[in-house]
Amino acid sequence: MSEPDTMTRFEVIFDAEGINAHKFRNDVTVHKHPPHPATVELPTDEGPKHGGDGTAPYPLAYFASGLTACTMTQLRAFSKRLGITIGTVRVKTRCHWQGEQRGGAPYESAPVAFTMDIDLGSDAPESDQRRLVAAAQKGCFVEQSLKPGLVAHRLKIGERWIAV
Amino acid sequence: MSEPDTMTRFEVIFDAEGINAHKFRNDVTVHKHPPHPATVELPTDEGPKHGGDGTAPYPLAYFASGLTACTMTQLRAFSKRLGITIGTVRVKTRCHWQGEQRGGAPYESAPVAFTMDIDLGSDAPESDQRRLVAAAQKGCFVEQSLKPGLVAHRLKIGERWIAV
Repeated sequence: MSEPDTMTRFEVIFDAEGINAHKFRNDVTVHKHPPHPATVELPTDEGPKHGGDGTAPYPLAYFASGLTACTMTQLRAFSKRLGITIGTVRVKTRCHWQGEQRGGAPYESAPVAFTMDIDLGSDAPESDQRRLVAAAQKGCFVEQSLKPGLVAHRLKIGERWIAV
Repeated sequence: MSEPDTMTRFEVIFDAEGINAHKFRNDVTVHKHPPHPATVELPTDEGPKHGGDGTAPYPLAYFASGLTACTMTQLRAFSKRLGITIGTVRVKTRCHWQGEQRGGAPYESAPVAFTMDIDLGSDAPESDQRRLVAAAQKGCFVEQSLKPGLVAHRLKIGERWIAV
């Protein structure tokens, strides 16, 4: 009789330190915690039409990349764990928000819909591809931090796009 | 009698296109939609200890910067709209997640706590500073997309840190 699989837990912590002196340039440094620390400068700015100087990406551009890439990383990692062969993975994500304001008051924002279209470049059975996407959703740190049900996924099977 | 303020709505859309051919390098291009379009390359990678080549930031580093900078941008923008004077703004955000796995199966992830410590560098009354932070929370596209209550904010008033 084999031993039951052991349940293990691990922590993932990222600290961001931001400084804004004036206008919309934010100097942001991000530190990944040990055991494998890493530090990166990820400044942001608004474009000239939004009162900024366009010296760095919009904050929401980082968000959109982070969400997309987090899922993609789990698709690649978990494809090996599940023994599901995938090829070149292509993901298109749309993050759609709405702002609402009365006169010149600060506006309020809300997400409208986030969609993620996934092409695994795979000939694996549809059930395996669905299983892999479901695992990636559960493993994606960003998606698990979002409002439940916010992200709608579609998977390309042959020439069809199916909701998963 | 003055006219009532007009309610206006606006859309904010960012599309991300990611390609992953092998390992953990994700080439991600993000397009901000018109009327003021912008495109930026925001690739990601895992570090060597996580099976990657460390050629680009972790996806979660982008997420942490995006969340932090989105709030900072609204603090700066709304300080003007509300007539609340602020100085150099310093924000420290901690994004803490946990992963849980059984044996070698794909892990499942969940946010543990996100904290954001805000120093507005301001002598404005505490009530005004609180009002500004509350407005920034409601206007922050990223925070409004997260699970309600996930982000805990503290505000520096004088030498004290107070929960807001």
